[in-house]
Amino acid sequence: MEIGMIGLGKMGLNLSLNLLDHEHKVVGFDKNTAAIESVASESLQLAESLRELVKNLPSPRKIWLMVPAGKVTTAVIDELIPLLDDGDILIDGGNSNYNDTLKHAEKLKEHGIYFFDCGTSGGVDGARSGACTMIGGDEAKFKEIEQLFKDVSVDNGYLYTGKCGSGHFLKMVHNGMEYGMMQAIGEGFDILEKSEFDYDYEQVAKVFNNGSVIRSWLMELVESAFSKDANLDDIRGVMNSSGEGKWTVETALDLQAAAPVIALSLMMRYRSQEDDTFSGKVVAALRNEFGGHDVVNR
Amino acid sequence: MEIGMIGLGKMGLNLSLNLLDHEHKVVGFDKNTAAIESVASESLQLAESLRELVKNLPSPRKIWLMVPAGKVTTAVIDELIPLLDDGDILIDGGNSNYNDTLKHAEKLKEHGIYFFDCGTSGGVDGARSGACTMIGGDEAKFKEIEQLFKDVSVDNGYLYTGKCGSGHFLKMVHNGMEYGMMQAIGEGFDILEKSEFDYDYEQVAKVFNNGSVIRSWLMELVESAFSKDANLDDIRGVMNSSGEGKWTVETALDLQAAAPVIALSLMMRYRSQEDDTFSGKVVAALRNEFGGHDVVNR
Repeated sequence: MEIGMIGLGKMGLNLSLNLLDHEHKVVGFDKNTAAIESVASESLQLAESLRELVKNLPSPRKIWLMVPAGKVTTAVIDELIPLLDDGDILIDGGNSNYNDTLKHAEKLKEHGIYFFDCGTSGGVDGARSGACTMIGGDEAKFKEIEQLFKDVSVDNGYLYTGKCGSGHFLKMVHNGMEYGMMQAIGEGFDILEKSEFDYDYEQVAKVFNNGSVIRSWLMELVESAFSKDANLDDIRGVMNSSGEGKWTVETALDLQAAAPVIALSLMMRYRSQEDDTFSGKVVAALRNEFGGHDVVNR
Repeated sequence: MEIGMIGLGKMGLNLSLNLLDHEHKVVGFDKNTAAIESVASESLQLAESLRELVKNLPSPRKIWLMVPAGKVTTAVIDELIPLLDDGDILIDGGNSNYNDTLKHAEKLKEHGIYFFDCGTSGGVDGARSGACTMIGGDEAKFKEIEQLFKDVSVDNGYLYTGKCGSGHFLKMVHNGMEYGMMQAIGEGFDILEKSEFDYDYEQVAKVFNNGSVIRSWLMELVESAFSKDANLDDIRGVMNSSGEGKWTVETALDLQAAAPVIALSLMMRYRSQEDDTFSGKVVAALRNEFGGHDVVNR
């Protein structure tokens, strides 16, 4: 097939190369000229504007968005709508909030444009050599473009998830699970580190990955991290996040689903971003007030 | 080597068969006669008492305990001590609390018996065809019996973890991580189930297992469970536990290690074992007291 790829950052570029490997044609565009120039040597055809990208694609057009979720995605979609025709197909492969996705779907439907939300997991390596994709949208139309998802994903690594929004929703919850799994792994190693024993963490992660119940790709990544820095001395335990854990918790609240471990995993990330806490000051002050317990002064 | 296996339950029996596959001789004993009879057709040599088992092993004896942790393990060790000689080797492959293990090690050392604590993961299938083992004890002596652990484990699936206690400690923390990972996975599926979308959970687990960040053996087991019962209609969400999660939390408290997600995963298991809660009654009564909010009567 012939695909337009909008966004040639780490994910979009690697997905494009992945598509090219599978005999698809790709016209790419990125508003960041530096990003375009860095890939000029690749077999990727480049467009200098959205308009040019659209013009270079045969009808019905198939366009894959791989741009930052939120305002950027919405802006690109708004810019694309007047350039596209009835029956064109737009795939949002980014990490959009499914509520945004539902709005985008509504708007695109009014213009007769088919919209698919594609949750993409597996990181940059996955984008390059085999991702995991979960796709929501019109089922009959999906079958026409199914080969694309089959091609960019590992074997059995793509799933049609149902109506529009279900792909990004599933990817969001996937990330929520990931937060909890990562926090549990982190806490376990913290207990090992504070114990009387003297473990080689790389070896521990390695043995866990060979035959244990908790063998997992995350544990393989832990093994890799410890292989580079045996005690992770060079990094601080600041855990940033990019939104999907928060959305999972917000969604759990809306659905009145009890998801305390995912919620707490998110809040432990927030805690890790502070050197000191106001809640800690309040508790310390209270202990001092009622019991005369010493506070730690600045 | 020639090994005595005490305890021929699911784990001990399968470990024995695994050892036999690797050209070791095994003399087995179980105080449950039914357990013994059920394996009578196997190539496993059976002893009718601990004394007979000990008598049938060449010196220095190598005895593997695979009996329930706690009182049973302690009782068997106490019964074995007068039967064993200086230089004999005892391996506790069960899920003993490492505090018990330290006491057992102390006692056995007084009698000149080498003691190894072997944390065993991978379930029954692992015991049969390749487990994951983590072993604490005397390092020089370990080398003499290393082949045993190599043989019963998958490739790279055994680790000498350091002094006595470190094997069971590591296995305990492994289970703590497992609690958190499982709870996070469970919560994620709960959010999917309460959502407006209509997912095929077996397919969801399958796609997660192919290329996603959360691919893992636990997710494979989830996939297997959903393949048998698409919405798990036939089971209740009662989450029992067998001790190691609790020990991990107790240990975290002793070490003053912040492990809130593992702790909460354990408490969510306790919550799941109650149909109603006293804490819920208290909160409902309070809402009624101060705000006149309706309570739900029995």
